[in-house]
Amino acid sequence: MDYRIETDSMGEIKVPNNKYYGAQTARSLMNFKIGGERFPAELIRALAIVKKAAAITNNELGLLPKEKLDLIIQAANEVIEGKLNDHFPLVVWQTGSGTQTNMNVNEVISNRAIEIAGGVLGSKKPIHPNDDVNKAQSTNDAFPTAIHIAAVEEIHRRLIPMVTKLRDALDAKSKEFKDIIKIGRTHLMDATPLTLGQEFSGYAQQLTNGLARINDALKRLYEIPLGGTAVGTGLNTHPDYAVKVAARISEITGKSFVTAPNKFEGLAGKDAIVEMSGVLKTLAASLMKIANDIRWLGSGPRCGIGEISLPENEPGSSIMPGKVNPTQCEAMTMVCTQVFGNDVTINFAGASGNFELNVYMPVIAFNILQSIKLLADACESFTDNAIVGIVANENNIKKHLENSLMLVTSLNPVIGYDNAAKVAKKAHKENKTLKEAALELGLLTAEKFDEVVRPEKMIGPKK
Amino acid sequence: MDYRIETDSMGEIKVPNNKYYGAQTARSLMNFKIGGERFPAELIRALAIVKKAAAITNNELGLLPKEKLDLIIQAANEVIEGKLNDHFPLVVWQTGSGTQTNMNVNEVISNRAIEIAGGVLGSKKPIHPNDDVNKAQSTNDAFPTAIHIAAVEEIHRRLIPMVTKLRDALDAKSKEFKDIIKIGRTHLMDATPLTLGQEFSGYAQQLTNGLARINDALKRLYEIPLGGTAVGTGLNTHPDYAVKVAARISEITGKSFVTAPNKFEGLAGKDAIVEMSGVLKTLAASLMKIANDIRWLGSGPRCGIGEISLPENEPGSSIMPGKVNPTQCEAMTMVCTQVFGNDVTINFAGASGNFELNVYMPVIAFNILQSIKLLADACESFTDNAIVGIVANENNIKKHLENSLMLVTSLNPVIGYDNAAKVAKKAHKENKTLKEAALELGLLTAEKFDEVVRPEKMIGPKK
Amino acid sequence: MDYRIETDSMGEIKVPNNKYYGAQTARSLMNFKIGGERFPAELIRALAIVKKAAAITNNELGLLPKEKLDLIIQAANEVIEGKLNDHFPLVVWQTGSGTQTNMNVNEVISNRAIEIAGGVLGSKKPIHPNDDVNKAQSTNDAFPTAIHIAAVEEIHRRLIPMVTKLRDALDAKSKEFKDIIKIGRTHLMDATPLTLGQEFSGYAQQLTNGLARINDALKRLYEIPLGGTAVGTGLNTHPDYAVKVAARISEITGKSFVTAPNKFEGLAGKDAIVEMSGVLKTLAASLMKIANDIRWLGSGPRCGIGEISLPENEPGSSIMPGKVNPTQCEAMTMVCTQVFGNDVTINFAGASGNFELNVYMPVIAFNILQSIKLLADACESFTDNAIVGIVANENNIKKHLENSLMLVTSLNPVIGYDNAAKVAKKAHKENKTLKEAALELGLLTAEKFDEVVRPEKMIGPKK
Amino acid sequence: MDYRIETDSMGEIKVPNNKYYGAQTARSLMNFKIGGERFPAELIRALAIVKKAAAITNNELGLLPKEKLDLIIQAANEVIEGKLNDHFPLVVWQTGSGTQTNMNVNEVISNRAIEIAGGVLGSKKPIHPNDDVNKAQSTNDAFPTAIHIAAVEEIHRRLIPMVTKLRDALDAKSKEFKDIIKIGRTHLMDATPLTLGQEFSGYAQQLTNGLARINDALKRLYEIPLGGTAVGTGLNTHPDYAVKVAARISEITGKSFVTAPNKFEGLAGKDAIVEMSGVLKTLAASLMKIANDIRWLGSGPRCGIGEISLPENEPGSSIMPGKVNPTQCEAMTMVCTQVFGNDVTINFAGASGNFELNVYMPVIAFNILQSIKLLADACESFTDNAIVGIVANENNIKKHLENSLMLVTSLNPVIGYDNAAKVAKKAHKENKTLKEAALELGLLTAEKFDEVVRPEKMIGPKK
Repeated sequence: MDYRIETDSMGEIKVPNNKYYGAQTARSLMNFKIGGERFPAELIRALAIVKKAAAITNNELGLLPKEKLDLIIQAANEVIEGKLNDHFPLVVWQTGSGTQTNMNVNEVISNRAIEIAGGVLGSKKPIHPNDDVNKAQSTNDAFPTAIHIAAVEEIHRRLIPMVTKLRDALDAKSKEFKDIIKIGRTHLMDATPLTLGQEFSGYAQQLTNGLARINDALKRLYEIPLGGTAVGTGLNTHPDYAVKVAARISEITGKSFVTAPNKFEGLAGKDAIVEMSGVLKTLAASLMKIANDIRWLGSGPRCGIGEISLPENEPGSSIMPGKVNPTQCEAMTMVCTQVFGNDVTINFAGASGNFELNVYMPVIAFNILQSIKLLADACESFTDNAIVGIVANENNIKKHLENSLMLVTSLNPVIGYDNAAKVAKKAHKENKTLKEAALELGLLTAEKFDEVVRPEKMIGPKK
Repeated sequence: MDYRIETDSMGEIKVPNNKYYGAQTARSLMNFKIGGERFPAELIRALAIVKKAAAITNNELGLLPKEKLDLIIQAANEVIEGKLNDHFPLVVWQTGSGTQTNMNVNEVISNRAIEIAGGVLGSKKPIHPNDDVNKAQSTNDAFPTAIHIAAVEEIHRRLIPMVTKLRDALDAKSKEFKDIIKIGRTHLMDATPLTLGQEFSGYAQQLTNGLARINDALKRLYEIPLGGTAVGTGLNTHPDYAVKVAARISEITGKSFVTAPNKFEGLAGKDAIVEMSGVLKTLAASLMKIANDIRWLGSGPRCGIGEISLPENEPGSSIMPGKVNPTQCEAMTMVCTQVFGNDVTINFAGASGNFELNVYMPVIAFNILQSIKLLADACESFTDNAIVGIVANENNIKKHLENSLMLVTSLNPVIGYDNAAKVAKKAHKENKTLKEAALELGLLTAEKFDEVVRPEKMIGPKK
Repeated sequence: MDYRIETDSMGEIKVPNNKYYGAQTARSLMNFKIGGERFPAELIRALAIVKKAAAITNNELGLLPKEKLDLIIQAANEVIEGKLNDHFPLVVWQTGSGTQTNMNVNEVISNRAIEIAGGVLGSKKPIHPNDDVNKAQSTNDAFPTAIHIAAVEEIHRRLIPMVTKLRDALDAKSKEFKDIIKIGRTHLMDATPLTLGQEFSGYAQQLTNGLARINDALKRLYEIPLGGTAVGTGLNTHPDYAVKVAARISEITGKSFVTAPNKFEGLAGKDAIVEMSGVLKTLAASLMKIANDIRWLGSGPRCGIGEISLPENEPGSSIMPGKVNPTQCEAMTMVCTQVFGNDVTINFAGASGNFELNVYMPVIAFNILQSIKLLADACESFTDNAIVGIVANENNIKKHLENSLMLVTSLNPVIGYDNAAKVAKKAHKENKTLKEAALELGLLTAEKFDEVVRPEKMIGPKK
Repeated sequence: MDYRIETDSMGEIKVPNNKYYGAQTARSLMNFKIGGERFPAELIRALAIVKKAAAITNNELGLLPKEKLDLIIQAANEVIEGKLNDHFPLVVWQTGSGTQTNMNVNEVISNRAIEIAGGVLGSKKPIHPNDDVNKAQSTNDAFPTAIHIAAVEEIHRRLIPMVTKLRDALDAKSKEFKDIIKIGRTHLMDATPLTLGQEFSGYAQQLTNGLARINDALKRLYEIPLGGTAVGTGLNTHPDYAVKVAARISEITGKSFVTAPNKFEGLAGKDAIVEMSGVLKTLAASLMKIANDIRWLGSGPRCGIGEISLPENEPGSSIMPGKVNPTQCEAMTMVCTQVFGNDVTINFAGASGNFELNVYMPVIAFNILQSIKLLADACESFTDNAIVGIVANENNIKKHLENSLMLVTSLNPVIGYDNAAKVAKKAHKENKTLKEAALELGLLTAEKFDEVVRPEKMIGPKK
């Protein structure tokens, strides 16, 4: 491979000629051969948004000349658009402030800008990675700001739309199934009836609430600590910088970011992300319940509950027609367990700041963005490949409903509690339907039974 | 011991004569000899509030005569006021719907009401535990409603006031320490300065945010599923019941409860509690950071950081004056680890509902109420026994600040970057102060040094 | 209440006259009003065993006179036997070393010994709580040693016997059900058959493995750091002390404790407990699977799987015979979620030692002992109240087996794969049995069908 | 792109011509667009080992002709050696049994074997993916067997050597530092002295214990369920198959695998992995403690503890010589938090099997292999880039030791407890050394002080 020599304060180091990154990135590659997990492109994009907004603000404040601004914007835009993703090779398991990835972004923007300007890669002229690209920033405020930006963007771009899509699909099924009366189950045991539509309405409501939770937690994610620089004091920034740079970020992203009221909190705590992770695991708890219910309702086809059928997406078994495995439910519930674990990681990491900095930022960024992506993707896949294709097995539903002993309650007003109990006990003991038992006991006629035992009267309040 | 005979649908069972509980409670005591953990009184109180509100509503709807209402209210009030706490012996590890504790409350109110009416304990006349006390309820809606009530009440009664108290104490310290300039620390390493007041302002902000989080999550806790009865349909309730009973609960508690928009969600999901637990673990993450910082700042007295002193509450060591162990920090951080674990328990339990019911309600109730209580108590103890007594050790703070090599930055404009670096390197290598090194190198005078190296200019943005 | 005055190095403090504890315990009660959780009696007992063993060893080494030894042994024995449990009022949320509870034990033994000797409570004569009872110990080595002792004792006294009891009960059921062939289920969907006995044999094996895991992890719990004193060096101990005192503890407990090879590890790490907690959560994962399977197999009675019936322990519903809720499964699974959460608490706490000490010992002790107790009690209750009373519903099992489409595989060698597939598809589509479908298609006779389709040939390997 | 048409039981599907995978892999790619996480190559390798061992065993049992065996071995070897890694595109979030990845392996081996034999890709002749490559297997036993193989191989190849390497490096430092006496710290507060070597010996012991834990848990990982096929019964296998195939796997891997005593446990439980994950999080707890201690000991350089220096691997700050951030400690502790979270994921997933199968296998495989890799890599990086380069700052260590007030204990025998206490109090109050205070009080001479106050006598037991 072809190399050039770049330098940092520790000396010279070889850098591949076909990469825009510089000495500090190269050094990190040597020192952190741990795992292979890299940050998602969304975080790199967010860091480049920080660089662009800072450059614009610095220019507005008279601290960065127009020529430099134009170069930085052009290079930063290429990063933002994902055109330079191959130039960010660092793993998550690096310095806990994310300094090396922040420098990676500084170096790539610097070298790409130099290239645009016709300069020599690594010369740091005319665009210096620290003095120009990182101007009025420290990793300590730039990196957490980037986490907030990436999380907010992905929540808006993917998570909210996909949770909404799933909610709407469940809501549509709820309406489709509104007249199908079925047996309820509590403690896994047969209970009083409800409609299949009512059952699905609970799922939809869980996600409606999940969306409200996300929106509430977003409030704290909109607050960014940029402007705090190294320890939160804002050393080396103009007094107007923090407010202005947040406004520029809002313009670039179209999201309503504001400068955090206290930068010390923003650098040393990661509470806004811990909170959002708590909301995501709540969403995962909802999705776990929904996916479990759906696979149990579809269990069988002959020896389970079998009240619904899921679409057949893959070969189940070459000889067993009807063996459709609920694979989308399985993917979803696996995603949920990952989100639960990620939440614990974020929790532990978020609680472990010391003094002016939390040095678990890369692992926090990695996990929150993974949770957001997995939940969004899983909601989309689950909707498209499972929910919209659900069919009610009305025969099975009806059979269960008619078989159930609990409908006996309806007879209380007609034949009295004691006789109703006799009917139920006989039916259970002799494995008969309630109707059979009631008729055999001679307590009422078949016509009367059919008139009285009416599940459709049991699915709501009544006067 | 003296016994009476009570009966349930499985037959007769002995009950201690000096207890108001009945057959189902006695049966649970036999069948669940597991651990010794009991529900806090707050949950029993909340269930009694449900009973009282239901009775009032049933009476309003013409379904419960005034004589019965008065008896139920009188007995329920005694439970609400905690007078009958000895009559609730059941452990957490029982049926997953909490039915046995719900029946315990029904039985105690019934028998106490019977006693007031001059009847025979266990006779179920004139107040029947099921037909009257549990009227228009199922455990399945009454128990989760009670969890919400207990959590909301304790959050308002204890958690919010105590978090606020701690926040205010930290804020007061922030103001007290606003002029004490100290070295900052990032990655545990010396960094640029800030004031001790700024450091504490970050802690106060974390708790201000924590309070906002609690308030947001409370929205979902105010929604109660009472009126859903067994499976969420509201079978056996009047159409006006759910809305009215929520209003009655709001009156009794003074908190703004409303009926949940979807009862199926309310019975089968426990998301509102999973969410609140997520907020509590976020608060615990904040408190962990704060308590850790404070004990590290107070570490020493001679061989640590020693920038603050904590009040001496207990004997540290009989021969080592100054060995004050940061015991309040230790209690606080232990509480935080408990809250983190409780959150995982609640998460797992909350995700594990099936169909129309979640049968992990007792363990969820136990853990959320423990987390609320521990955090509230720990905030109070931490404030009173640690925070308010913190004293800044200005000598140590000054010594650290003066010793620090990073103040060399201030010299850059005067002697140039290269010379400043020489000063710093010499000071580090020869273990000298910057001033000593600068003077020995003859780069500037002592007067000039003192004029230029001014930490107070480094603690904020400037034009 | 009646008080006496006791003193510690901070001065005088009132102590209730009817309590043996002294000044430091009283001071802790004032300073730590947090929660209400107390250590289980097993931990207090274990601390008293430490005191007794230390006293015997000190006497052997010529450092404690016989008269003092006798007094300490007599008082310590009363604590060990649980006679003085009312004298240990401290909560878990105290100093992180457990010093206050260690002092509580020192004070109670001292004062009770003084009383026996006819002295004055609080006089510290003739038995001094520090100089005599705590001799050659520090809380820092005594407390973690006590956690190991309490955990080992309870694992042997309760956990292993109760897991074994449950394993044996499952094994007995496995044998009882060895000839009952049933449909298998994978992905919740009908699969190839196995016997109900085989299904239960898997559960028994999980617990057999669980017992092996416990035994492996016990190796590290047998190692105790007593003799390390304050920081692990063994300052103030005789060179023979550590080995001898471990031998004395082994004699008193009948368990094979040894002195840890490295005391620094023993004081600052809590890894042996973190490891055992990891084993307990593995056991909980097994129990969660078993309890879930059993309640799903018993679901119904009409509209679920219904292949087994659980004993009816409590009233299910007054009108629904057959509605037996799987309450023992629910208690068990709730216990499992608690153990999962406790494991996270222990994990976080165990990882958080600094330098020569871990100051999360009380919360670690509390959680590990709770996990042990809950698992043991739940295994016992689950065995006695659920497993031994399980009955196979052979009718339902047979019906499912016969209904299942997957038996069609057996026809492949007789009518060919394509015809077999036709049979299965027709049966599925027209909701018929395989036999009906096969006969209608005229592919073979009823006799031939019955001869060939034989699930009993599908439950094991064959040549 | 160039496509060919392959078929499965659901019909035709396009497959890229330059890939060996077939219809089921292609279908999975369409249906599971979730995240981007793929299985590590180690798992694919392990599945190919299963295929090879099964083919050899089938041939031995007379069930697979030699010609087919040779083709399968040749193709499987290429997968084992990692030559075909580009042909495994599936994500983790698929069917919970891992069927699609198992089929991916079957398809690649089949098509590559066909290619070798000169056949037509996708023709399934002469090597059929199901009938030949998957012969005598089901995903349900092959996939968990592969997880065990991959975990065992990586634990032996990487984890044990790297933990051992770190342990040995810590042990070497312990010996190097054996004569450096330093102040001990408990509760973060100054305590009695020990040597720096003793401190490091505790770290080494933690890892020695960690290795013992790994070895104990490996016992259960050596047991593989291969031979259980679809539900654990071994349907479609020869009675000798299970034992023989385990022996073949042992030969191929050089590790002592055995057939599990109960296949039902092996398919439906994932306890052996849950257990190993519990051991890994215990190891992470040890590593967290070690890495935290090391960065705290190295904190400063001027305003922290500063008793050791870590190697300078990257630029800390361009102007602050001596600001070496403990980046390797930060990478390590971030890895530990990931392992803690992964453990919770594995726990939840492992506890969630139903009946004859656990359908969380992909997420379990992904997390356990990530934990193993991250811990191994982090131990190596931490050793090479941090531990071996640690230097003791003997000046600081000496200064702390001499400053410490707790050495006053040594004076008790000479000047009496009361006078010693006076010395300590005066020193603390007036911010003096013990020696200064003692001399000022005129209690003994400087020579006597130096003779008596000897930390080197306080670092071990003595007669």
